Amino acid sequence: MLDVPFLPFCAFLGTLGLLCVAMVGTWCQHWRGGFSLDGSSRTFNWHPVLMVTGLVVLYGAAALVYRIPNTWSGPKLPWKVLHGSLALGAFILTVLGLAAVFCFHNSQGTPNMYSLHSWMGLGTVLLFSCQWAAGFGAFLLPWAPTWLRALYKPIHVFFGSTILMLSVASCVSGINEKLFFSLKNGTMEYKLLPAEAVFANTLGLLILIFGVLVVAALARPSWKRPDSDSPDSRQPLLSAER
Amino acid sequence: MLDVPFLPFCAFLGTLGLLCVAMVGTWCQHWRGGFSLDGSSRTFNWHPVLMVTGLVVLYGAAALVYRIPNTWSGPKLPWKVLHGSLALGAFILTVLGLAAVFCFHNSQGTPNMYSLHSWMGLGTVLLFSCQWAAGFGAFLLPWAPTWLRALYKPIHVFFGSTILMLSVASCVSGINEKLFFSLKNGTMEYKLLPAEAVFANTLGLLILIFGVLVVAALARPSWKRPDSDSPDSRQPLLSAER
Repeated sequence: MLDVPFLPFCAFLGTLGLLCVAMVGTWCQHWRGGFSLDGSSRTFNWHPVLMVTGLVVLYGAAALVYRIPNTWSGPKLPWKVLHGSLALGAFILTVLGLAAVFCFHNSQGTPNMYSLHSWMGLGTVLLFSCQWAAGFGAFLLPWAPTWLRALYKPIHVFFGSTILMLSVASCVSGINEKLFFSLKNGTMEYKLLPAEAVFANTLGLLILIFGVLVVAALARPSWKRPDSDSPDSRQPLLSAER
Repeated sequence: MLDVPFLPFCAFLGTLGLLCVAMVGTWCQHWRGGFSLDGSSRTFNWHPVLMVTGLVVLYGAAALVYRIPNTWSGPKLPWKVLHGSLALGAFILTVLGLAAVFCFHNSQGTPNMYSLHSWMGLGTVLLFSCQWAAGFGAFLLPWAPTWLRALYKPIHVFFGSTILMLSVASCVSGINEKLFFSLKNGTMEYKLLPAEAVFANTLGLLILIFGVLVVAALARPSWKRPDSDSPDSRQPLLSAER
């Protein structure tokens, strides 16, 4: 494929990710009434912001750590810690994002977990929690034997991309659903494409593009760590030999 | 990763794809009033059926042709024709599926192309049309030079998986949207999770699983044609040398 260097591509991806975060924040602040913790729709507004920030952008950053050429020489341990910490940050934001929507539903008397968006979203978060726990247990703690790490690594890599795809699909269906809920009166109907609809639809497309580009970057052979199967890559955080 | 042979996996995928087609047909027939060509919601019902059948299941089958071990020996041309024909069949069903929703909207006086689902879906179909035309021009017609084929091939492969991911995301957001439109009265509200909602949510999850498994099969190194970069793989349908 076209010979694009990783770091400028990564800078572009970072800009695109920050744009997505800024746009979802602007949408909720400017058109949906801003943020609060009182159980109202302003509490719900934390949900899209935290999900896009955690489950898409920060998750994407965590996934790309091992594609940075600086990680290819020297000890891998600091990069493992960075990868795990970014993923943990993404997971914490995601859980807070779930708490926001559950708090909103409960205070409004709305049932939880009925839409396809919610089923897919919660499934994605559950997969993410398994992925983080299994990654921590296999690659950072000292007890997993080398053969188990070698067996699990491609599964971890596969689910890394899969969870991001599912996150993006969840975000897009959620934005679509929220616009149908919110834009249903007079000149503000979704089907009349008011400014908010154009803005949030554009946000949805940018999230899609971000997800596709991160998955593409992860799949690109020349951007992978050349010695990704060396014994050093299986060094745990707390080495049993120490 | 786990050592699963391709053909049983492929049979499982085929069963899952047929189940998705049967379920989307059942949903529209049993709960949404069936099918017609009169511009009513029964015309709309062709839209989900044709999109799931064409843009997801048949598209997935087309994408997997080169993973069948029988394609690895002997001339590649018949498999190229099969790949292109299945993709063309998927594209025709997709265009008919778009025609169904445009016909329904126009006869109801509903604007077209306002929701994020529609933007993403049409973008996916446009990408698919470019992909088919570029693939046909580069790999089946005799005029593309070998260097251009070699340059374009990884791009074609990348967009092959990407379009499937976008198709799945479009289907899922569309099912979510349709359920909010349809289930809004009395005991049939979506949030009360009537049988239709459980059925269609399950369909959405099965479509997701189908898409993820096809992308995983495409990405699995041991299932790729070993000589995928050999000159034979660039043999056009109508060879200029003949």
